[in-house]
Amino acid sequence: MTDLPVPQLQADGRLRHLLTLDGLPADVITRLLDEAQGLREQALGGTGLRDALAGRTVCTLFFEPSTRTRSSFQLAATRLGADILGFDVMASSAKKGETELDTMRNLEAMGVDCFIVRHADNGAVAALAGGARPATRFINAGDGRSAHPTQGLLDMLTLRQRKGADFSKLKVLIVGDVKHSRVARSDIHALRALGAGEIRVCGPRLLLPEDDTLRGCRVMRHLDAALEDVDAIMMLRLQRERMEEGLVPSLEQYFREYGLTPERVACASPDAIVMHPGPMNRGVEIAPTVADGPASVILDQVSNGVAVRMAVLRAVLAS
Amino acid sequence: MTDLPVPQLQADGRLRHLLTLDGLPADVITRLLDEAQGLREQALGGTGLRDALAGRTVCTLFFEPSTRTRSSFQLAATRLGADILGFDVMASSAKKGETELDTMRNLEAMGVDCFIVRHADNGAVAALAGGARPATRFINAGDGRSAHPTQGLLDMLTLRQRKGADFSKLKVLIVGDVKHSRVARSDIHALRALGAGEIRVCGPRLLLPEDDTLRGCRVMRHLDAALEDVDAIMMLRLQRERMEEGLVPSLEQYFREYGLTPERVACASPDAIVMHPGPMNRGVEIAPTVADGPASVILDQVSNGVAVRMAVLRAVLAS
Amino acid sequence: MTDLPVPQLQADGRLRHLLTLDGLPADVITRLLDEAQGLREQALGGTGLRDALAGRTVCTLFFEPSTRTRSSFQLAATRLGADILGFDVMASSAKKGETELDTMRNLEAMGVDCFIVRHADNGAVAALAGGARPATRFINAGDGRSAHPTQGLLDMLTLRQRKGADFSKLKVLIVGDVKHSRVARSDIHALRALGAGEIRVCGPRLLLPEDDTLRGCRVMRHLDAALEDVDAIMMLRLQRERMEEGLVPSLEQYFREYGLTPERVACASPDAIVMHPGPMNRGVEIAPTVADGPASVILDQVSNGVAVRMAVLRAVLAS
Repeated sequence: MTDLPVPQLQADGRLRHLLTLDGLPADVITRLLDEAQGLREQALGGTGLRDALAGRTVCTLFFEPSTRTRSSFQLAATRLGADILGFDVMASSAKKGETELDTMRNLEAMGVDCFIVRHADNGAVAALAGGARPATRFINAGDGRSAHPTQGLLDMLTLRQRKGADFSKLKVLIVGDVKHSRVARSDIHALRALGAGEIRVCGPRLLLPEDDTLRGCRVMRHLDAALEDVDAIMMLRLQRERMEEGLVPSLEQYFREYGLTPERVACASPDAIVMHPGPMNRGVEIAPTVADGPASVILDQVSNGVAVRMAVLRAVLAS
Repeated sequence: MTDLPVPQLQADGRLRHLLTLDGLPADVITRLLDEAQGLREQALGGTGLRDALAGRTVCTLFFEPSTRTRSSFQLAATRLGADILGFDVMASSAKKGETELDTMRNLEAMGVDCFIVRHADNGAVAALAGGARPATRFINAGDGRSAHPTQGLLDMLTLRQRKGADFSKLKVLIVGDVKHSRVARSDIHALRALGAGEIRVCGPRLLLPEDDTLRGCRVMRHLDAALEDVDAIMMLRLQRERMEEGLVPSLEQYFREYGLTPERVACASPDAIVMHPGPMNRGVEIAPTVADGPASVILDQVSNGVAVRMAVLRAVLAS
Repeated sequence: MTDLPVPQLQADGRLRHLLTLDGLPADVITRLLDEAQGLREQALGGTGLRDALAGRTVCTLFFEPSTRTRSSFQLAATRLGADILGFDVMASSAKKGETELDTMRNLEAMGVDCFIVRHADNGAVAALAGGARPATRFINAGDGRSAHPTQGLLDMLTLRQRKGADFSKLKVLIVGDVKHSRVARSDIHALRALGAGEIRVCGPRLLLPEDDTLRGCRVMRHLDAALEDVDAIMMLRLQRERMEEGLVPSLEQYFREYGLTPERVACASPDAIVMHPGPMNRGVEIAPTVADGPASVILDQVSNGVAVRMAVLRAVLAS
């Protein structure tokens, strides 16, 4: 369990920040999923919740580009009626020598109530949270290889919608570049917390982490065997942009060994679902016919993402 | 008439997408102009229409930069009360290998109801529309050299305001780089649909299209002769950034042969109007004294642009 | 007093544009500060003033990047209920050869009521104001080395909150790179207008201006002596990005001679406050322990910035 510079929970157990799912109690996760499920319809439009966060200011503070995740958070905040400030540090004063903590404190002094932060470094979001005023809230939108908790939650919501709330019955397989994946880490944290029946992991040896990330997971070498009987297949994006030289596999070979094809999907449980956090490399980690096929719930994940982010925003800003 | 992967009209004749004016029935165009005329005042401010698209999400999905056109659409959507998501693909996941169709489908899954798309390739907007859910709407904000239908509509609105609704009486001259101009194509489509009396075209031989773009137009070699008796002079921007090597004329020579000077305006009908889609190259295709002179309606075009885009947004999102 | 192409005041004395504090009457400044003080709470959130500028369109037109200042203006306009259009010329049609005046006039024709302009050139904002329609308003968000009037106002508001409204009792010291600083110029303009008891200036000889900027100021060579008895220490950012080759001092030497340390703060009046416009170069012009120390009002300045910008927006858009 990660050591955080600030607690994620209030004394009364309510959510203060969302920095990681690692160590977050199952009932907190379940409450967020329940809330997100209830928000599912509003998440795609409508004006019913415009008073929920009216007058509150939410800032997407991105030290690393990500238009998709930022858009999802932006729509979530919009549909709750919050004011939104987009702040990309790529084009900002950080270049003029200001520290990241000073950038955050300046925005905080302008009235930002909640920061949604993406950062290339592990722990950077928690470090900012540790330097903020007590009332200011932080949501981790992805830090380094460490965590992407709203992605973990939206994946759990998607699983629950398709497979029911009893995770102990589920066999889930995570495939690919787990080493560089904050998505995989947050999924594993959440699956552990919710008591998943079995968490399998399959990927090239060089792309599996050597730390305790895979604690409690069943590491399998061959994809065909790993797929057997699983209820959900979580594909990961091959993040070539994060890999050191020499680690990057040939794309053809990668697809041959780890690409999800219709034949391989047929090895899984008959009603297995296929998940992917996006953006997809079609033909690299997943065949187009699988991405668009009947088992794919990839676009459901995207829709659930807005609902989960609405739930998290409400939770942290209410407490 | 362009072959589209999706019909622009609903079965009942209402507008579903706006991809091109090519083949759009005159009565559909006229209804949009009527609606835009009625919206003209609201287009420049006020809060009277904030409920019109409340709870609907409009996304400007730009694969090619254009701050002006995006701003005009953004203000149009704002004044109708829509939620707006700006998505520039220059800075997005497309760079991480995602297909354009996947990018669009992700945003659609987040709840986008209408995409306003600009793209460097002919037909790219229609292709995206062809891959979307039935309820999702598309407005072409300029694709390749092919079409820029809202510009065509705003030009027609400007013409109608100044010259009346009977287009059969009008002689209109389009001057310049027609070959690279989606604006010229949409203007010609609209003028043909509305039954303009005469459409003249004048420009350097190498900058005139060789396909059937100029069907029904009178191509004239010398600007002075072409100007005679015309009611409206539509200048085009010399788009050097779109030209192959060797096509780019010398700017001095271009201005000498095709630049609109006060002397040349005097060759036209006494109450002729001067139009330009912007951004202008002053001193290249148009003399500053003409751009700012009494015949210029260039800024009216800009104001009409917001009204036309409001009308189009309402039309597609109502049907 | 700067010669402006447009008057800043209406015939009846109300504020029309805010281009510079140079020559602005003390009572106009005081009214803006009073108004800002009243808005202080709303500036940090809430929905009480959402009708104030509803239906009005405010455009941040930035010819030079500045995410912080733009964010502050954006939040100010948001909290007053205005529609906001962000227009960065770095990524726009200006690159396609359009003049800056044409860019502004286009946005004006789309219904922009008020431009907030940042520009690298002295006088560029006033020049745009001189080319606009009579009803359009301009707020200078920093032009060249010339003026940054809202920064001047927020500094005065911060001074007044801490030191009271009688400026004649105040000794204020400005330290650093005055030559390149529009902040220093606007502070000096405001301090002169409000009748500050003494304005001291201290900085490297090569970084002090040779024009009449320092009229009425007491220029002092050594920081320790300059600090004696002062009530407020206004540190300036060392703007290396604006300096010609050869002017850039060594950072170590600069900090040794002009950096604000706790020892130096102790030379000032016991209750002296420390100000900085940001972004700070910690360890260059200011020691981290001073920036975060008890005398620092730097984050108050930031909060006051939003309030001042709300006051200015209301003032110019009401008249």
